Amino acid sequence: MHFTSDNASGVPEQIIAALARANAGFAPSYGADALMDEVRARIRALFEAPRAAVYLVATGTAANALSLATYCPPWGAVYCHRIAHIEEDECGAPEFYTGGAKLVKIDGEGGKMTPPALEVRLAAAAPVGVHNVQKGMLSLTNLTEAGTRYSPAEIAALASVARAHGLPVHLDGARFANALTAEGCTPAEMTWRAGVDVLSLGGTKNGLMGAEAVVIFDPARAWEFELRRKRGGHLFSKHRFLSAQFAAWLEDDLWLNLARRANAMAARLEGGLAGLPGARLRFARGGNMVFAELPRKAHARARAAGAQYYPWPPEQGEDGPETQPIGVRLVTSWCTGEADIDRFLAALKGEGDQKAG
Amino acid sequence: MHFTSDNASGVPEQIIAALARANAGFAPSYGADALMDEVRARIRALFEAPRAAVYLVATGTAANALSLATYCPPWGAVYCHRIAHIEEDECGAPEFYTGGAKLVKIDGEGGKMTPPALEVRLAAAAPVGVHNVQKGMLSLTNLTEAGTRYSPAEIAALASVARAHGLPVHLDGARFANALTAEGCTPAEMTWRAGVDVLSLGGTKNGLMGAEAVVIFDPARAWEFELRRKRGGHLFSKHRFLSAQFAAWLEDDLWLNLARRANAMAARLEGGLAGLPGARLRFARGGNMVFAELPRKAHARARAAGAQYYPWPPEQGEDGPETQPIGVRLVTSWCTGEADIDRFLAALKGEGDQKAG
Amino acid sequence: MHFTSDNASGVPEQIIAALARANAGFAPSYGADALMDEVRARIRALFEAPRAAVYLVATGTAANALSLATYCPPWGAVYCHRIAHIEEDECGAPEFYTGGAKLVKIDGEGGKMTPPALEVRLAAAAPVGVHNVQKGMLSLTNLTEAGTRYSPAEIAALASVARAHGLPVHLDGARFANALTAEGCTPAEMTWRAGVDVLSLGGTKNGLMGAEAVVIFDPARAWEFELRRKRGGHLFSKHRFLSAQFAAWLEDDLWLNLARRANAMAARLEGGLAGLPGARLRFARGGNMVFAELPRKAHARARAAGAQYYPWPPEQGEDGPETQPIGVRLVTSWCTGEADIDRFLAALKGEGDQKAG
Amino acid sequence: MHFTSDNASGVPEQIIAALARANAGFAPSYGADALMDEVRARIRALFEAPRAAVYLVATGTAANALSLATYCPPWGAVYCHRIAHIEEDECGAPEFYTGGAKLVKIDGEGGKMTPPALEVRLAAAAPVGVHNVQKGMLSLTNLTEAGTRYSPAEIAALASVARAHGLPVHLDGARFANALTAEGCTPAEMTWRAGVDVLSLGGTKNGLMGAEAVVIFDPARAWEFELRRKRGGHLFSKHRFLSAQFAAWLEDDLWLNLARRANAMAARLEGGLAGLPGARLRFARGGNMVFAELPRKAHARARAAGAQYYPWPPEQGEDGPETQPIGVRLVTSWCTGEADIDRFLAALKGEGDQKAG
Repeated sequence: MHFTSDNASGVPEQIIAALARANAGFAPSYGADALMDEVRARIRALFEAPRAAVYLVATGTAANALSLATYCPPWGAVYCHRIAHIEEDECGAPEFYTGGAKLVKIDGEGGKMTPPALEVRLAAAAPVGVHNVQKGMLSLTNLTEAGTRYSPAEIAALASVARAHGLPVHLDGARFANALTAEGCTPAEMTWRAGVDVLSLGGTKNGLMGAEAVVIFDPARAWEFELRRKRGGHLFSKHRFLSAQFAAWLEDDLWLNLARRANAMAARLEGGLAGLPGARLRFARGGNMVFAELPRKAHARARAAGAQYYPWPPEQGEDGPETQPIGVRLVTSWCTGEADIDRFLAALKGEGDQKAG
Repeated sequence: MHFTSDNASGVPEQIIAALARANAGFAPSYGADALMDEVRARIRALFEAPRAAVYLVATGTAANALSLATYCPPWGAVYCHRIAHIEEDECGAPEFYTGGAKLVKIDGEGGKMTPPALEVRLAAAAPVGVHNVQKGMLSLTNLTEAGTRYSPAEIAALASVARAHGLPVHLDGARFANALTAEGCTPAEMTWRAGVDVLSLGGTKNGLMGAEAVVIFDPARAWEFELRRKRGGHLFSKHRFLSAQFAAWLEDDLWLNLARRANAMAARLEGGLAGLPGARLRFARGGNMVFAELPRKAHARARAAGAQYYPWPPEQGEDGPETQPIGVRLVTSWCTGEADIDRFLAALKGEGDQKAG
Repeated sequence: MHFTSDNASGVPEQIIAALARANAGFAPSYGADALMDEVRARIRALFEAPRAAVYLVATGTAANALSLATYCPPWGAVYCHRIAHIEEDECGAPEFYTGGAKLVKIDGEGGKMTPPALEVRLAAAAPVGVHNVQKGMLSLTNLTEAGTRYSPAEIAALASVARAHGLPVHLDGARFANALTAEGCTPAEMTWRAGVDVLSLGGTKNGLMGAEAVVIFDPARAWEFELRRKRGGHLFSKHRFLSAQFAAWLEDDLWLNLARRANAMAARLEGGLAGLPGARLRFARGGNMVFAELPRKAHARARAAGAQYYPWPPEQGEDGPETQPIGVRLVTSWCTGEADIDRFLAALKGEGDQKAG
Repeated sequence: MHFTSDNASGVPEQIIAALARANAGFAPSYGADALMDEVRARIRALFEAPRAAVYLVATGTAANALSLATYCPPWGAVYCHRIAHIEEDECGAPEFYTGGAKLVKIDGEGGKMTPPALEVRLAAAAPVGVHNVQKGMLSLTNLTEAGTRYSPAEIAALASVARAHGLPVHLDGARFANALTAEGCTPAEMTWRAGVDVLSLGGTKNGLMGAEAVVIFDPARAWEFELRRKRGGHLFSKHRFLSAQFAAWLEDDLWLNLARRANAMAARLEGGLAGLPGARLRFARGGNMVFAELPRKAHARARAAGAQYYPWPPEQGEDGPETQPIGVRLVTSWCTGEADIDRFLAALKGEGDQKAG
């Protein structure tokens, strides 16, 4: 019953096998390995982007911060949602990598910003010349941090506002595969066709050990990205072990199937919670995350049964009055078991106790 | 015949096996995994440093740059050898992480600086007050970039000069195990007993996929290091896969045995080169690197036979007059084969050609 | 009729005279001038702070950004009001100087934050460990950017909240003299006795050419400040010309008298506006700034008569529907004339037109 | 007898008068003052550069660091002479403003680098790809820190090497007027016609209180410079007081006449030292700085008579064996008196003592 995060799970056996295969003999270092050529070709094909530059790093924070730094100057503003990962969960990595850019928060229901809200903020940014930070770039997250999802049309609408103000667009796709499979569109539709310039394509939360791709659709800034990656200490010498993970992940739709499975588990969980007296679902589920309010007693029973998950929002904490429900975040993964979900639901409902009794 | 770098090799099977074992089930993220507790305990025991803070990152550049940033202020000077990795090969990562510290180069034969050379530089740094960068810290490398080795006594002598000027001491141990086993001393003797405050303990070049430890002997700055690691994007979410590599590496002296093997292969190579007419060995071999000058014809034969290695120093390049020997760097690894070395030596001598003929 | 900003005014003749006096002969550079000794002694005496470190720079942005950088680490949050100068008007200088700290905005009526609002924000900042930026410092502004004023008791209450969370406190005193004389308290009461650690003591807006003091009440970080000042390019070689301005400003209460005069002019202006049909005063005037809503027709008449001032808030712009009043900011200065104010009021009322006609 | 630095002198009366004139009434802030329009027009005319962007800041360190940051990326190398001011005397300001660029030192007699030495360094920088810092820009100093002078032809030769490697060229002209008048060429000849992209045009050392211009010959990066200036806290609100200094300085060739006078005084000093038994002149005097070795006894007599100057190089310090001469740096200024020089020479020779006796 582990629902803290999809990064608490391991990797499918194909990844271990791929590492073992890649291990044979000597290989060129620092990204010159043949497996990387394969990864690049596959991603270009999948995204219908034959000129795209593709790079691997080991963490999502690195993928995001390097992407932002490549497109936003130190005196720029990065427009993002109030609860974006880059704003809330990276200890200022975007500020560090950009040399002090300012993250400007835009609010919006369910972790999503709307084009009018973005337009208002950008319109307000104009008039004071050199005195305030300049409009820098837009960063969206899909799935969002509230587990909701932008459709390609929604991304395109936001990107269009950004474009009208001259801003490039970043997409934090730590859970890109979850969004993509839930949406049922193509990778191109969710990215460059919708106006995205640079994508953090997350592998770690969807079945890899620690591997993320950055896809830069217009390669004009590719070399700058490479220098920033090296300078940030994110260029692997034994790079083949990143490539191997990604190559196996992209093979035979493994990445999509892992995401589909995680999403299906979240659907099952959501379905079960809908039937829990006193529980309330929050936000429209976009993929593999479920946000809910649980009655305190149900929560206590689940905790007693060993269920692991985080209160949400984080600042809420674990404690609260008996009569007030607790907000929680429940994340499923490619390896979440149906039985686990059913046990969790039973514990919430007190059925587990009865059985145990 | 692959002698470009020890980072062109793979990993021993124990590491793959350890990753497979660590993969089971869910595990706490971000360094809270139980394997990390094991790694920490082992390193503390090995270094006889029960209070040491121990952290893992994936690259040597990250280990070095984060260590320097934790100990040297932005207005400080990092004293290092002219050919130190931090100066030559990290694209300015130390400057980036420290916020603009200045690397001050000290020259010295064979990649080693001497206490008098350090003292002269530090004495000269004193008098101009706020106008120049301040004395910041000392960074040594062992094995050095010229493949030589500092003894504990030599480290202690340099650290003592640094200490007299109030400077902390960093040791870049990308090839620490190679130095340690060649020297035959204890980890403590080569580090904190000799005055080292923070160590980059390299795993990648000695049989890991991408894992380095940072050992901070006085934990006063440990929390700052943790924040810098996160902010640099170097904190792994699925941290257990770093821990697993390190735990397996430290088990049953694997790390030492891998280094011993690489060193032995370098000794064999060195021995063979000593008998090559016209060849000249450069620098006193400290571990698993051999620097030599080769006759152009021998070099051409080796290249023709498929041997891979780099000219050295790097700016020298591949070309040069027939009559002038070429400087080369030859690095052995835990998986270098005796047969490979013998083939390489035969090719240099032209024996391979004869046999083939 | 110049009410755009107090930095559009010049300097009183005493300042020119002081520069001329200071000009004689040679003088030690970089702050070692005898006039600086005098300035330091005067400020220590005025603030009853015999150990305070005192430094001069030429701009308020430098004073603020250097102060913040000295007390807040790169991974820290600077808590400030939503409309603080450091957030809105310095093009990211705090982010640049701190190495990427995050400014966290707290809202509050009239440019003032309240202790409960601060407490809520700080309490929320606690729980996520290394993943988010850490609590860094508190920065207050007095006079605020809305022209209101914190009393010493209000500053003390906010500083007390900060202190309970371990945070140092900065006071942006670009209009400190205006606040001080309006409040009628001592400099110590408004600063260190209320819990302020570091003060930007503004001279430029109150009669100097370009000179601000930074007063660090506990000198432990004084040397760090000096290095940051030099490194930021803010240490004057011919420092005597900054010292001379400050020495003259502090002599015979000139600084207080200039501020009193500016405040008195603002009171006169406020009084006049109170009698203007359709006008509405906003915020409680704390010193030399008046914020009001003016009927569009009155505004048009004032503009036609040549009055200069800015719409407020800045993003509102100049244009708007006839029937909707325009928000404006009116700033008086030590050299604002009574006649100017009366002419402006007459223009607003349309009396100027009639007279002219 | 004050020869420590030209920044120990004051300003000619025209500057005080100009400040008094500029003080009347209100003026637009932040560089929108009419005097700045005048300064810009004058500098464009003087430099025959009608499109040049011209900005004022208060310190030479700001002028240099902002110029470098505008043209050199964080991962770039700034090639400069080993004793350049940006390397030795700015506490790492270039590293701070560029975000961690690396200053690469080139040696050369008398503070001057030669085209072959630069070419060797640039050629060596090429081959290692992403691993080392990239070629960034060239920074020259004229007058150099050893008081020597580059001719336009020498600058052009160095700039040509830089250009061949794609590097822009900065000229640190803290003593530009001294170099210009000594050389007898036009400002254009010494700058853009010789290949200079950006000039720090020093006013402070040549008769201003604290005012330096940055001249950007191709305005493509002008807006970036403006943002960097603001963000660095170097944009003056009461900017007219910088403009007024520069306008007066440029009027009626004042800036050239001040430099000529300083140079003439240095010539007189040099002539006198040539006749001092045991003294030795170092470096070819380029303007207003004289470097010499003095017999210890002469030095002691000068000190006893109250002469002020610095030992050189700085790390040498004041002490040394009786029999060994002391290296000194003697800087004249626009206000150095002939009598002062003669007194100093007399003191060195011991004539002052005899007279006094």
